[in-house]
Amino acid sequence: MSIRIGILGYGNLGRGVECAIKHNPDMELVGVFTRRAPESVKILTETAKVYSVDDAEKMKDQIDVMILCGGSATDLPEQTPKYAQWFNVVDSFDTHKRIPEHFANVDKVASENGHVGIISVGWDPGMFSLNRMYANAILTNGKDYTFWGKGVSQGHSDAIRRIKGVKDGKQYTIPVEAALEAVRSGKNPELTTREKHTRECFVVAEEGADLARIENEIKTMPNYFDEYDTTVHFISEEELKRDHSGIPHGGFVIRTGKTGWNDENSHVIEYSLKLDSNPEFTSSVIVAYARAAYRMNQEGQNGCKTVFDVAPAYLSALSGEELRKHLL
Amino acid sequence: MSIRIGILGYGNLGRGVECAIKHNPDMELVGVFTRRAPESVKILTETAKVYSVDDAEKMKDQIDVMILCGGSATDLPEQTPKYAQWFNVVDSFDTHKRIPEHFANVDKVASENGHVGIISVGWDPGMFSLNRMYANAILTNGKDYTFWGKGVSQGHSDAIRRIKGVKDGKQYTIPVEAALEAVRSGKNPELTTREKHTRECFVVAEEGADLARIENEIKTMPNYFDEYDTTVHFISEEELKRDHSGIPHGGFVIRTGKTGWNDENSHVIEYSLKLDSNPEFTSSVIVAYARAAYRMNQEGQNGCKTVFDVAPAYLSALSGEELRKHLL
Repeated sequence: MSIRIGILGYGNLGRGVECAIKHNPDMELVGVFTRRAPESVKILTETAKVYSVDDAEKMKDQIDVMILCGGSATDLPEQTPKYAQWFNVVDSFDTHKRIPEHFANVDKVASENGHVGIISVGWDPGMFSLNRMYANAILTNGKDYTFWGKGVSQGHSDAIRRIKGVKDGKQYTIPVEAALEAVRSGKNPELTTREKHTRECFVVAEEGADLARIENEIKTMPNYFDEYDTTVHFISEEELKRDHSGIPHGGFVIRTGKTGWNDENSHVIEYSLKLDSNPEFTSSVIVAYARAAYRMNQEGQNGCKTVFDVAPAYLSALSGEELRKHLL
Repeated sequence: MSIRIGILGYGNLGRGVECAIKHNPDMELVGVFTRRAPESVKILTETAKVYSVDDAEKMKDQIDVMILCGGSATDLPEQTPKYAQWFNVVDSFDTHKRIPEHFANVDKVASENGHVGIISVGWDPGMFSLNRMYANAILTNGKDYTFWGKGVSQGHSDAIRRIKGVKDGKQYTIPVEAALEAVRSGKNPELTTREKHTRECFVVAEEGADLARIENEIKTMPNYFDEYDTTVHFISEEELKRDHSGIPHGGFVIRTGKTGWNDENSHVIEYSLKLDSNPEFTSSVIVAYARAAYRMNQEGQNGCKTVFDVAPAYLSALSGEELRKHLL
């Protein structure tokens, strides 16, 4: 029998989950739950239905895992604990600072109701966290580095679009190759914000707007751009659409460390991602963890978990025997 | 209280484990067990003792985890099941083909005696296996590639040394950069053995030996060299000692795959290691899994496990709360 999945929230991430389920034959999409009018939402899966979020509770016996695809700012802090009372849940909560609080809230409800809730799943937090953790456990005497990009930062793109005279815009975060090389060399450099990443902006200005002022406002914007070397390109709306409509991302997690009785040997562990579609990759990670949530719950586990708490084998559709034979 | 560790077998790996324990303050080396005369074995840890393997059983209440540092060909198939009757055990069994059989043997004894045995720990099998598995679970529609090197292959170095007229030698396995680039580009190339790796040999010949014959014997040696582009350098004994006495290794695990309703987006997941000392890195992985074996056993688990069965958090000396706060 398939693992029956529900999707709550049908934006880029929800659609990505739908696509990922198509690539996992042991799973089945039962329904998409939306705050919009259900009849206004068109989904891709012919065998699934669109429901109002208000009908979610009624579906608690038809769904094994509810995947929460809302945003971290306001949706998930409320939704994940709420839906954990009726379902096993997985979310991609990514506000690092608030994870301890979110964990506690989900843990309480999931434990009380005998469900598993896996939070902060994706690639950062998610696969990057896992790789930081494994590398730290192995090379206890070492140093961590995380670089992001090349990829689109939604937050920085939004910040550009809020500037007067800007019609549209897209921002790429780019790791500095020289910094990556210095890290890989095992030199353990101390890197400033400016040394690690550059920012590149593609901006569509409104007709007659003061381009010099816009460029200056971007480059000096506190928190977002002032600590970086930023490049601004003004382009046409057509160019933006043609060349910058994707949502690529990626990055690097590197740990360098020493071993030996006198720390005489150096090692470099590096994990990297190059993603055409940030939401579709994130969704693919989430769907694997939905399988884990289901299985762990079937075995009688409950409460809140993160990627650190999930034994890798739970993620795979293969049996332990097959995994040992083919992937060990 | 510290986790009390025993080391069985004191070669490169055993010494590496000893060094790794020094870097993990929650662990303590109790003793090294050897088949040699104990008084002939000098270890680095002043607070630990050297024992005869025959005294291992007597120490079963003084040691939480016995780390088995023998070879995969003949030592571990016998030792790991044997010592699992008295201890939680960890080994680095790396004969891929025989893993299912080894797993079954260890599982039987460990289960019957209430111990945890974690087998095939290191980097391949080990961290490379884990990365293959995670990447497969995420990108279900994709292709795996593993490259090894640049590093010393003990087996190939031994093979060179068996040739008549060869006094000493060292062989490096080197991944072909063009093949790596083709894989990273997402082209899903089908690569032959020759296209993936080259082999470079540094050979010290006996005086008056026929160098042309030696070079030819190496290059045409079935299984070891005939399917590769091999370079042979004749050097002096001093040069070999000066430039080639290390045991570096490393490699790359790459999975490329597609997501999207019509497979329209490509992704690359890459994990790589660059290691100054193969045995010391392997040992560092093993020691982290020794922590896991101890903890899982403390929680009442038993039987044989692999890296696929161990939740990442068990490897770290940090608490779940600290992990979520600092590494998620």
